[in-house]
Amino acid sequence: MNKYKVRTDLAMENGEKYEKDNVEIQGVRIKRHYNKVKDIHTTLVKIETEHGARMMDKPIGTYITMEAPSLAVSDEDYHKEISVELSRHLKKLLPKDLESVLVVGLGNQDVTPDALGPAVIGNLHITRHLVREYGSGGPGAENAPMISSLVPGVMAQTGMETLEILQGVVEKTEPDVIVVIDALAARNTRRLNCTIQLTDTGISPGSGVGNYRSGLNQETLGIPVIGIGIPTVVDAGTIVHDAVSNLLEALDESEIEEFLGEIINPSLTSMFVTPKDIDETIKRLSFTVSEGINMAFVE
Amino acid sequence: MNKYKVRTDLAMENGEKYEKDNVEIQGVRIKRHYNKVKDIHTTLVKIETEHGARMMDKPIGTYITMEAPSLAVSDEDYHKEISVELSRHLKKLLPKDLESVLVVGLGNQDVTPDALGPAVIGNLHITRHLVREYGSGGPGAENAPMISSLVPGVMAQTGMETLEILQGVVEKTEPDVIVVIDALAARNTRRLNCTIQLTDTGISPGSGVGNYRSGLNQETLGIPVIGIGIPTVVDAGTIVHDAVSNLLEALDESEIEEFLGEIINPSLTSMFVTPKDIDETIKRLSFTVSEGINMAFVE
Amino acid sequence: MNKYKVRTDLAMENGEKYEKDNVEIQGVRIKRHYNKVKDIHTTLVKIETEHGARMMDKPIGTYITMEAPSLAVSDEDYHKEISVELSRHLKKLLPKDLESVLVVGLGNQDVTPDALGPAVIGNLHITRHLVREYGSGGPGAENAPMISSLVPGVMAQTGMETLEILQGVVEKTEPDVIVVIDALAARNTRRLNCTIQLTDTGISPGSGVGNYRSGLNQETLGIPVIGIGIPTVVDAGTIVHDAVSNLLEALDESEIEEFLGEIINPSLTSMFVTPKDIDETIKRLSFTVSEGINMAFVE
Amino acid sequence: MNKYKVRTDLAMENGEKYEKDNVEIQGVRIKRHYNKVKDIHTTLVKIETEHGARMMDKPIGTYITMEAPSLAVSDEDYHKEISVELSRHLKKLLPKDLESVLVVGLGNQDVTPDALGPAVIGNLHITRHLVREYGSGGPGAENAPMISSLVPGVMAQTGMETLEILQGVVEKTEPDVIVVIDALAARNTRRLNCTIQLTDTGISPGSGVGNYRSGLNQETLGIPVIGIGIPTVVDAGTIVHDAVSNLLEALDESEIEEFLGEIINPSLTSMFVTPKDIDETIKRLSFTVSEGINMAFVE
Repeated sequence: MNKYKVRTDLAMENGEKYEKDNVEIQGVRIKRHYNKVKDIHTTLVKIETEHGARMMDKPIGTYITMEAPSLAVSDEDYHKEISVELSRHLKKLLPKDLESVLVVGLGNQDVTPDALGPAVIGNLHITRHLVREYGSGGPGAENAPMISSLVPGVMAQTGMETLEILQGVVEKTEPDVIVVIDALAARNTRRLNCTIQLTDTGISPGSGVGNYRSGLNQETLGIPVIGIGIPTVVDAGTIVHDAVSNLLEALDESEIEEFLGEIINPSLTSMFVTPKDIDETIKRLSFTVSEGINMAFVE
Repeated sequence: MNKYKVRTDLAMENGEKYEKDNVEIQGVRIKRHYNKVKDIHTTLVKIETEHGARMMDKPIGTYITMEAPSLAVSDEDYHKEISVELSRHLKKLLPKDLESVLVVGLGNQDVTPDALGPAVIGNLHITRHLVREYGSGGPGAENAPMISSLVPGVMAQTGMETLEILQGVVEKTEPDVIVVIDALAARNTRRLNCTIQLTDTGISPGSGVGNYRSGLNQETLGIPVIGIGIPTVVDAGTIVHDAVSNLLEALDESEIEEFLGEIINPSLTSMFVTPKDIDETIKRLSFTVSEGINMAFVE
Repeated sequence: MNKYKVRTDLAMENGEKYEKDNVEIQGVRIKRHYNKVKDIHTTLVKIETEHGARMMDKPIGTYITMEAPSLAVSDEDYHKEISVELSRHLKKLLPKDLESVLVVGLGNQDVTPDALGPAVIGNLHITRHLVREYGSGGPGAENAPMISSLVPGVMAQTGMETLEILQGVVEKTEPDVIVVIDALAARNTRRLNCTIQLTDTGISPGSGVGNYRSGLNQETLGIPVIGIGIPTVVDAGTIVHDAVSNLLEALDESEIEEFLGEIINPSLTSMFVTPKDIDETIKRLSFTVSEGINMAFVE
Repeated sequence: MNKYKVRTDLAMENGEKYEKDNVEIQGVRIKRHYNKVKDIHTTLVKIETEHGARMMDKPIGTYITMEAPSLAVSDEDYHKEISVELSRHLKKLLPKDLESVLVVGLGNQDVTPDALGPAVIGNLHITRHLVREYGSGGPGAENAPMISSLVPGVMAQTGMETLEILQGVVEKTEPDVIVVIDALAARNTRRLNCTIQLTDTGISPGSGVGNYRSGLNQETLGIPVIGIGIPTVVDAGTIVHDAVSNLLEALDESEIEEFLGEIINPSLTSMFVTPKDIDETIKRLSFTVSEGINMAFVE
């Protein structure tokens, strides 16, 4: 029997199904904070045990989610206040005495909602080659760590898994930490393009536009991997799920999944849902994220 | 009461609901043809009366739809056989003794599934400036009509309606006919990226990614307007409709629409569904279409 | 006999040859100003008579040139101080009580040093469609005039002269003024990418990458046309001229031109010279210019 | 004393200075062939000794240069006859029993004349992931070797040397051979965009738009490296050199270099010369090259 399983790349969304039922999950700690001035809801999810990881369907680790409705609309300063907040959280996840970092822009730059990662890279201040040539106090690299970047492309373009490419580059260039940027899939359209997730668990094989068969994390890459993601798409099946589950309130989730397994067209699994103005959105969001990263490294 | 209305830019899809019920529509003639060698299903829809137009929800005119499943997969020759077929149909719609044609690539080149029109323009042989400089037998324009092209952009980028821009350009450059290329919305995911519609009714305000408030047609532009479109997206609400209507077979369409009006999230109306490999698809399809157009003008 | 004539789109460069010889040109007034804090040299050239126009090889009108060496290097705030200055000059050239403006990004977005115009358009706040829908006090258009924009493409892509396209669009959409943005050719490599010229004479058929056979100005378009340009290329022949004229100091300019007409390879006239890092440069400069334009319209 | 040294990435151009003087270089064999039907001049340069390498200023190895004037003009079949010829030469340089190949597109995709490598990659049939999933007889990979590809970007974007990135990727994915595609610098504008060089010596630190401080070759990468390049730019200093050397025929090359060292503006060394229609050219050439590579692997 085919079940249709709703998936999300946001840890906090996986937490929500339990909260609805007022169930506490052993091994998972959730903390919320609301910054009224900036209108940012922050959710900190700590998955501490294997049991918690199973329940949340996400690896053990820390997940910080910033929800900022204002992100969805244009702003003269490219939402500098959110860049500042992102920078603050990122610094907490970065190792101390950082000397060298590799920032990786995942995704396909030819598919608009998947182009977030490559777009962020385009706005970063890259310094590794300058530091190596002139030293860390030299021109263009004032006291920043060595920052390098890569846009590896997707498997349909390269024939290689992103993990293979990164393993090789990490071995040769020996950064202390990797920061990967990726477009994510949410399960709630309301979260699209106004939510930023930071995690110290890297990137897991996910439901976004790009497909990673192998996770990018400390275990596979040998150094800490910080993931920064923004949901820009929703699985096509998910919006059917939501409409139908409203409709079938009497059924429990497992019955709904079974039911959807029958009525959802299998071709939908290779499709995604995204807003019509995704071009403007990616341009704006990528700037906010890259400014946040630039700030985190400069001090 | 809010009803959810499924929309499609394909005339033949609007015909299907009647055929299911074996109803003939007065004022509409439908003819089908299957080319076994090329595996192309061609449907000719002629809407001949106002009554037919109302029933089909499309303007009076001719609609030729080519369905070619092979279009969805890669091919060394960029599906030359389909370019040839497209060229044959286009020639029948073009006025005789054509001296000058303006080809317009509608849509937003920064949103992948909406970039079909601009991509087609990029592969056309433009000759108007050569004919005007060297005459029609001159270099680069052997006996072709004067071909000019424009990528007007979308209203969010220009602040202008596409109709305003085209009216102005038509008045100044006086082409005999306009050919507009656009990405369409289908209501059946099965038709995405393997269906080409040609029509002598131009482009109507539609359900695709781009929004045209005013139609582009002979009435608004003063010269014949031929539309060539390929469905690259499906309305997000449509896939919910389909799943649910399977489910609610007992209800009739109007009851379903009412029902969906309640359960479908309004934000879905600003979203679209498209395949994850839409980048490769647009690249391939735009080549097939532009070769078809190039052929139509050279002989 | 073939003479090689050095050309420049910068009025102030045409002025320099006379200054070298300490000659005053009748009908031309030149004023200089240096802002020490911002390190901007501003030159105001007023060509007031036909005689002056002939001597300067530029139409009668006002030319403001800002030279800011700092523009050539990266800056966190995208050189906001220069955007402010640009905005100040632009406001002086704009008509009073402006209700509607069309901003045009000239050039070929597929040739990096010619992509300045299209890149500037990409960062503008477009409001015409919003004002028309919600009124001038509505969302997204707080008291700004109606701003529309167009990226017409180049003749090799469209088969049409830019003038034809603009004449048509102006007639239909009736702006009060046009602002055209274009990449220019300088004759001195030292001025590349750090000089901004504003003029009320529009754009003349020039020596840049794009070729305009017909000028874009009040005479041809019926409304004021303000040109904003940055030199991003130098004519390939020019750098030969400079090297050789150093060498042949004994000869006068006319003798040098004759001489160069013989030794310069004619194919050079279809080539340009530009810096290797032109991609970064265009990205940065386009932001500075579009911010300057945005500021000019908001207050 | 500063000498200005004309540089070229084409081995055959370095040979020419000796031929002019009718000098045979020890350790260098040069063979010419003209295909009248296809109008292709082929030059085979074999540098066999260290002495030859010094004289030619290029590493020991084989250099095949195809000059095809027709490449410079548009063609309906994208110059299939040249793709076939390129494929034939490439096969001779490839190892026998090839199982896996990595194709690398060097250069900066944001600078038009440097975007040849990335553009070629965009048209390749990538199969490595398919072969690994379905076997070498599977769908989409009929008997082809495993083909993977990478667009590493340039140092200003990544902060890493291309060599570092490739060394890592080669170690992890273990191809049998690398094919690198790059835009080159010629010293004669007549050769721009109509000359293809193949070599088994990879890519040397060159004079093109991109800068490679470390060579990409068998010595640095551990496997054979085949370079395919097309000159798309000329050094800005070169065109001065040519004009002046016509002028100073009495001087020998060393005197000219000294002389130019004095009169050539040092900023010219960071500039390049390229034709104004370079966008069309890159699009066309990249297709011819990628088709040639595709053919070489399929049989």
